[in-house]
Amino acid sequence: MKSKLFTPGPTKIPGAVLSSVGKQVLHHRTPEFSVKVRHVQDELGRLLSTRNDVLLFTCSGTAMMEAAVANLFSRGDKVICLMNGAFGERWRDICNVYGVNVVEYAVEWGQSNDPARVGELLEQHPDAKAVLVIHSETSTGALNDIKAIAKVAEGHDAVTVVDATSSVGVHEIYMDDWGVDVLVAGTQKALMTPPGISFVAINGNGWRCVTKSDLPAFYFDFTRTWKRLQSKGQTPFTPAVSLIYGLETALQMMDDEGWNEIYARHRTMGEATRAAVKALGFGILPENPVNGVTVCVCPEGIDGNQIVRTMDDDFGVRVAGGQLGLSGKVFRIGHMGGIRERDLPMVIGALELAMAKLGYKVEIGRGLSALQDVLRA
Amino acid sequence: MKSKLFTPGPTKIPGAVLSSVGKQVLHHRTPEFSVKVRHVQDELGRLLSTRNDVLLFTCSGTAMMEAAVANLFSRGDKVICLMNGAFGERWRDICNVYGVNVVEYAVEWGQSNDPARVGELLEQHPDAKAVLVIHSETSTGALNDIKAIAKVAEGHDAVTVVDATSSVGVHEIYMDDWGVDVLVAGTQKALMTPPGISFVAINGNGWRCVTKSDLPAFYFDFTRTWKRLQSKGQTPFTPAVSLIYGLETALQMMDDEGWNEIYARHRTMGEATRAAVKALGFGILPENPVNGVTVCVCPEGIDGNQIVRTMDDDFGVRVAGGQLGLSGKVFRIGHMGGIRERDLPMVIGALELAMAKLGYKVEIGRGLSALQDVLRA
Repeated sequence: MKSKLFTPGPTKIPGAVLSSVGKQVLHHRTPEFSVKVRHVQDELGRLLSTRNDVLLFTCSGTAMMEAAVANLFSRGDKVICLMNGAFGERWRDICNVYGVNVVEYAVEWGQSNDPARVGELLEQHPDAKAVLVIHSETSTGALNDIKAIAKVAEGHDAVTVVDATSSVGVHEIYMDDWGVDVLVAGTQKALMTPPGISFVAINGNGWRCVTKSDLPAFYFDFTRTWKRLQSKGQTPFTPAVSLIYGLETALQMMDDEGWNEIYARHRTMGEATRAAVKALGFGILPENPVNGVTVCVCPEGIDGNQIVRTMDDDFGVRVAGGQLGLSGKVFRIGHMGGIRERDLPMVIGALELAMAKLGYKVEIGRGLSALQDVLRA
Repeated sequence: MKSKLFTPGPTKIPGAVLSSVGKQVLHHRTPEFSVKVRHVQDELGRLLSTRNDVLLFTCSGTAMMEAAVANLFSRGDKVICLMNGAFGERWRDICNVYGVNVVEYAVEWGQSNDPARVGELLEQHPDAKAVLVIHSETSTGALNDIKAIAKVAEGHDAVTVVDATSSVGVHEIYMDDWGVDVLVAGTQKALMTPPGISFVAINGNGWRCVTKSDLPAFYFDFTRTWKRLQSKGQTPFTPAVSLIYGLETALQMMDDEGWNEIYARHRTMGEATRAAVKALGFGILPENPVNGVTVCVCPEGIDGNQIVRTMDDDFGVRVAGGQLGLSGKVFRIGHMGGIRERDLPMVIGALELAMAKLGYKVEIGRGLSALQDVLRA
């Protein structure tokens, strides 16, 4: 039996998207394909509430973070990296590889970064060019207040660079209103597309950084990519055509459902899942939780990795373990994109049975009842 | 009507491959998926006749060329770039972006690079660390003699770095016997997979360059990627899972057909197509032609771009135009991967009808007869 995915990305892909992905490929230098590319760009822009340019790349979300660093900065530039989990730390690691100087602002995993503290750091480092931040930190389930952080950065003439890989399509994003200058994301999470396509949106402040950058970028060169998209609706290099078909279908499905409905659905799924796991004795790691993934803290004596393994092997449901320092201490239930409220009893049911099978104390049905209480409300 | 693709990549994707690509995604951090990754790595290694490591990346073929430069060299290193078309020039352009010093060895488009001349250049530049070359130059259809070039480079202690994107699966490659140190390729051509996965194979000499390199690479970091593949059969960042399914199926199909049979099929397709277009009055651009694409030179008064457009719009067959300086002067017929001998009358038939429709002088059936004469032999 193939397990059902309740992982925080890649997520379960809807059948309609898979069926687009499996179509015969169009040549990428044809007007028909350009129509698809422009359509996807426009839809992504609307989803981010931005009139900025949206550029598509064939790569993972991490590569898109790297592309932002390589296009925006120069060797020796100073930036502030907000770190509250594995992906925030990745901003720092990428900057280190490129010789960009990092001012680290780390908080304990599970916490969110404090906008006021960002302001203090920008006071101390008036030469900092940018603030790099994760919107939804998938490793801890913590949400950062991008609106407030971007406002603080703007007040200090620093650009705000946001990774929104696990928030886009889960939480509202108002790129232009919030004053976010550069936003990167992958499409393999709430955008319900098999992994492989990522994108960046960039405003005038971002482009001004690009013109000054001296770091090397060829495949990820934003200017070259923009020119080709602008003039021909094409990417400079052969893109993952099949995945762009899938993304187009996924965005159409999102339009059909309605964005407000999508955000409300994720809000309900977040609340219901948190209520269910709390009723089973688990803690919730983040103070300010995202709605796309629930990061469950295991009480003393329960091994998160064992739960993940047993749910997968014995009950056909795949959730994710904790990353790095959280390994064994937490497990993560993804509920975004193609997951609906009706799917949640499957994962909570499997969790209850896995606990029983492992000999942990559990009142079978208690998590499910708590789940239902939220869903019926 | 959707046109049939006879383009030199992306190529027509077999139904069995598409059906794998359209499958529900497995999570990329599972043993089941690791089995697929290792299987694909092994098959690619066997196809290249190498015992070297094969690393998979989600990106285009160009990005893989860039990754080789970023991983192997340092700022100020000197390399010799062999250029006989658009892709050879790309080696130079990438090196320029990274501050790697390029000794250019350009020949006229359509020619192949001369191994003896490579030897002379290495004499003149004993500090050159590497020779960068394209095996099958897709823009001109010219084949380079990699065996001879690698031998010359070896004699001067320079590493040989080969792009084999449009030769792998078309022409025999003996990476280890020939002494090729680093080989990069995409899988969207003769490997019959929708675009998005590329790979690099690297030997001990290549790895020695990697340890000395000071250029930045994070997503494309060969060492990080090797470690993760070695220990867990995983990629460090989320890969294009769907395309790896497709690649696995495509490689299985190639195994089933037999590699010698595949090389023989491409040889026949190359000879037959060249004979057919010559019978219709076109020239063949390269002196030493590859078997995956036929680059047809238009006689005075015939516009290659018009032929491409008419074949596509009126006869449902998509071939490719000339790149850069060759635009209008040539057109390119791709016949690799999923294309069989039986498909060739479709493209030659459409070419004849397009010529007639455009009012060019053509003896209908003459190209097809010449094609048949080769196919029946």
